[in-house]
Amino acid sequence: MVIKYPNGKSFNANSNNNVPKNKYVKPTSYGGRGMTLEEELNRSNEFYLAKNVAVIHKKPTPVQIVKVDYPKRSAATIKEAYFRRASTTDYNGVYKGKYIDFDAKETKNKTSFPLANFHEHQINHMKKCVENGGICFAIIKFISSDEVYLFKASDLFTYWDNQFNGGKKSIKKDIIEELGYKINYSINPTIPYLSVVDELI
Amino acid sequence: MVIKYPNGKSFNANSNNNVPKNKYVKPTSYGGRGMTLEEELNRSNEFYLAKNVAVIHKKPTPVQIVKVDYPKRSAATIKEAYFRRASTTDYNGVYKGKYIDFDAKETKNKTSFPLANFHEHQINHMKKCVENGGICFAIIKFISSDEVYLFKASDLFTYWDNQFNGGKKSIKKDIIEELGYKINYSINPTIPYLSVVDELI
Repeated sequence: MVIKYPNGKSFNANSNNNVPKNKYVKPTSYGGRGMTLEEELNRSNEFYLAKNVAVIHKKPTPVQIVKVDYPKRSAATIKEAYFRRASTTDYNGVYKGKYIDFDAKETKNKTSFPLANFHEHQINHMKKCVENGGICFAIIKFISSDEVYLFKASDLFTYWDNQFNGGKKSIKKDIIEELGYKINYSINPTIPYLSVVDELI
Repeated sequence: MVIKYPNGKSFNANSNNNVPKNKYVKPTSYGGRGMTLEEELNRSNEFYLAKNVAVIHKKPTPVQIVKVDYPKRSAATIKEAYFRRASTTDYNGVYKGKYIDFDAKETKNKTSFPLANFHEHQINHMKKCVENGGICFAIIKFISSDEVYLFKASDLFTYWDNQFNGGKKSIKKDIIEELGYKINYSINPTIPYLSVVDELI
């Protein structure tokens, strides 16, 4: 199915190139350096990979390719393609022999996390992974306060399913603070989420 | 890095649509139905997913997106993009709580498998995964004889590394028959490779 890129938002093809390499960092705060959650997680995963702690990658953006040009003596150029809806979450890999699978979501909302940030197929994918012994969770960032939480998939499923039975369409930040695991920014890895995973396995 | 799509070969955007839906199949042979190895594995993975046996997906083709049009009232169109080199293997997922990671390669060669089918970064990725407790292997198909083998990553590493120490640039089919595990085609799943994985875990 051809869809607009997430919510019709502008796609920044060069987002990775916008990360300042040598930007001054305040010693007491590692967040708020203008990086998106995706960039922070990619950096964290690069660190984990370099230290041979885990092999976790973000999957490529799924694209339906329609037309490709093959000019002589230069790279093939895709001339027409469309964003497809991903059938899985964005991140997966291996840590201590375990299958790790998660999605990362950030919200500008200060008091709650809107469940509409997830698509049903992502939840279904995580349910399948959990049933098959995978370790699944969401990494949720509240942009305004620069707070990052790991929220277990099992808790996410409860609130997700509840919204179809008269429950709320969002999860209160209080609840995420209570059930989730706050991840404090560090220098390396930027977001040390595997320290929380250690408590889950 | 911008590269040509694998070896400059033509990219068929509609390859999935070329699979005959109701083609007559000889009762004694399940192979040779004109499907590529990728199509056969995608079908197998769909079956495993439907039966809740495992959650294994092929990763999307990595694409560097340069230019996107956002026409009003219709889907965003990618107008310029390039194929990127994948930094991992193509398939991964979870089976019985274990992390599964593999790549699929087919060859027209009748007597040996050329190691040039792999890229160094794919081998390095598999080495990292094995070190972190993942189950890694190659699925190799000899097209002319319609034979499919699962070849353990540890064996692949031996022959891969050997080629840089005076060893051959290919693995003899005899060796793949001896060290690998032949996977016989079946109706569902088309390629029952997880039966072999059961012997590895």
